Amino acid sequence: MNGNFKYWNPTKLYFGENSLNYLADELKNYGPVVMLSYGGGSIKRNGIYDAVIDILKKAGKTIIEDAGVMPNPTVEKLYEGARMARENNVDLILAVGGGSTIDYAKGVSTSAWCEEDPWQKYYLRGEEATCKVIPVGSILTMVGTGSEMNGGSVITNHAEGLKVGKVFGPYAFPKFTILNPTFTYTVPQYQMVAGFYDIMCHILEQYLSDDDDNTTDYIAEGLMQSLIRSSRVAVKNPRDYEARSNIMWTATWALNTLLKMGKSTDWEVHMIGQAVGAHTNATHGMTLAAVSMAYYHHILDAGLPKFVRFAQNVWGIHGEGKSDRQIAEEGLQALEAWMREIGVVLHLKELGVTDEMIPAIADSTFLLTGGYKTLTREEVIEILKESM
Amino acid sequence: MNGNFKYWNPTKLYFGENSLNYLADELKNYGPVVMLSYGGGSIKRNGIYDAVIDILKKAGKTIIEDAGVMPNPTVEKLYEGARMARENNVDLILAVGGGSTIDYAKGVSTSAWCEEDPWQKYYLRGEEATCKVIPVGSILTMVGTGSEMNGGSVITNHAEGLKVGKVFGPYAFPKFTILNPTFTYTVPQYQMVAGFYDIMCHILEQYLSDDDDNTTDYIAEGLMQSLIRSSRVAVKNPRDYEARSNIMWTATWALNTLLKMGKSTDWEVHMIGQAVGAHTNATHGMTLAAVSMAYYHHILDAGLPKFVRFAQNVWGIHGEGKSDRQIAEEGLQALEAWMREIGVVLHLKELGVTDEMIPAIADSTFLLTGGYKTLTREEVIEILKESM
Repeated sequence: MNGNFKYWNPTKLYFGENSLNYLADELKNYGPVVMLSYGGGSIKRNGIYDAVIDILKKAGKTIIEDAGVMPNPTVEKLYEGARMARENNVDLILAVGGGSTIDYAKGVSTSAWCEEDPWQKYYLRGEEATCKVIPVGSILTMVGTGSEMNGGSVITNHAEGLKVGKVFGPYAFPKFTILNPTFTYTVPQYQMVAGFYDIMCHILEQYLSDDDDNTTDYIAEGLMQSLIRSSRVAVKNPRDYEARSNIMWTATWALNTLLKMGKSTDWEVHMIGQAVGAHTNATHGMTLAAVSMAYYHHILDAGLPKFVRFAQNVWGIHGEGKSDRQIAEEGLQALEAWMREIGVVLHLKELGVTDEMIPAIADSTFLLTGGYKTLTREEVIEILKESM
Repeated sequence: MNGNFKYWNPTKLYFGENSLNYLADELKNYGPVVMLSYGGGSIKRNGIYDAVIDILKKAGKTIIEDAGVMPNPTVEKLYEGARMARENNVDLILAVGGGSTIDYAKGVSTSAWCEEDPWQKYYLRGEEATCKVIPVGSILTMVGTGSEMNGGSVITNHAEGLKVGKVFGPYAFPKFTILNPTFTYTVPQYQMVAGFYDIMCHILEQYLSDDDDNTTDYIAEGLMQSLIRSSRVAVKNPRDYEARSNIMWTATWALNTLLKMGKSTDWEVHMIGQAVGAHTNATHGMTLAAVSMAYYHHILDAGLPKFVRFAQNVWGIHGEGKSDRQIAEEGLQALEAWMREIGVVLHLKELGVTDEMIPAIADSTFLLTGGYKTLTREEVIEILKESM
């Protein structure tokens, strides 16, 4: 465990098939005006919308409808939601959806009463909120981002060609989150497996750094093994409750700040993937999947001991008579085989990236220093080309 | 993940060599009267007492000294502390010590303003607090119990021959805990390794139940592997910061409610060990160690698949050409070898138990139903005899 750090995660989690039953009790903790933020029609088709509206009405709440949160929430939508929350003096923002909806709700919660431009203040300058912050509750319907128990909020500014993730402190974490695995059954397969890879990538971004003997890395290995096993079940049978519930729980713990405690983290795959997303609007998890293998091969030598450990502890690769590099390569091969098995996108061209777009994507990529290797713009271009 | 459950752990953790620096800021959140609860002279000898007093004085706090919390806090001490806290209108109880001191502080925090007898209400009837609860902060100096991030509070009533653990809800968790691995350096070797086994036992009590494919069990396996590795370093060099910090972090996560989410738990080793403790006043972790091997052999057949998994995933036992029972036995042999290596007590007679005491210890043992086998009184006697 390196350095001095603070762990504080006050989000309450309600988990299980009947976890929506807890909503009525939670609503008692908040004032009368609830802004209901959600995306498109999926929660109307699968009945979740009606169930939530029913509970809100029975609780006597005034409901402010805030539909149309898009998969990559835009800064324009953020401005609109913030104005709506302020004008209606909202007491609670209830986000019903996947990570995008919850990310957006956190942005609205901190922007509604903010005197400055929130895009500039939070997302570009990385500052913390200094105004009143509206509490957020969430009901998760798509698994992957971990937004349900952290301060992450990714917003896209198409005009500036930027997709930026701000990490707010615990004051902006959802106050409560309802995790019902059956609510994820109707997510289309493409989005479901994108979420699975998003989870794996979150763990790897925090695991693939440092060479010490940190407890946190053992927890990460456990979560990866559980994810691999349950994802193999879920791709064949998306309604396997045990598999979907394990994956939902893994996703939350993969990115609720635990795995970054006492260690450095990388996040360069997310930087490249988010740049791809800003230029293509492709599904987040798929942008990560498409660039991961090229990136990991690129940093393999720099982080060789950890890649060897990854191969042995997560994939069960035996080491007898092999060089460290061979073992590490076999670990990456096992990762790639699993990615093919669950069906994620392995090539950027499938996401609409063209050769001509590569320099601009590289320009939009933030270069981070926490991992085994700090990339140059030229190396990002190389990785993008190899990922085509 | 079985059933519906709630996870909420609002304790703030400050971790690291300089984590005491955070205390001054935390004190600003509480009123002027601080009750300082601690045990014997060890924190005076190693300088922690002076450092804490200095911070409290600089913060302008009125300090109520509450020394003499014993390793197994008694109900008489609890009554005395509760009266002191009430009479001085204490705003914060700052527990400095190991799990016993923090367990005791939680008891005082919920008892000070309780109109009923707290021993009856909380420990015997298992009720929740309905009175004002005084906030508790903790500074951990001995690792093992996990009390720093949970609601556990074990109190001993010698007159009744009972040592009872009450688990309070999150309202009684420490509001903050300071985890400085260097504060554990001066713990005597015997207490240190007793703590190591206490951690292992906490994980096993939650791991050795159910046969499903629960994510939580993978996290448990990661924590056990980290503990095994770091404990081997720490017994040789107690001042190895990396090892002691990993163990401190593992201990907290072993019993902060995460590992029991979505599964049943056993806790029968604790029931037997606590009964031994009530009759001998022996060190908690050693009572667990002395009865564990007999207990696990006793339940091996009932929980065979999990014991096989334990052998393979935690101890790396290979299974080729072996029966499940052989693999499971080899796992237990590996566990016992590790116990010998770190130096825990493996026989009850070393803790002062005599053959004559066995029936009374069995009478004090609560028989729980969550594990692979529900014991009878006769089986407890058998296990106690085998543990001699």
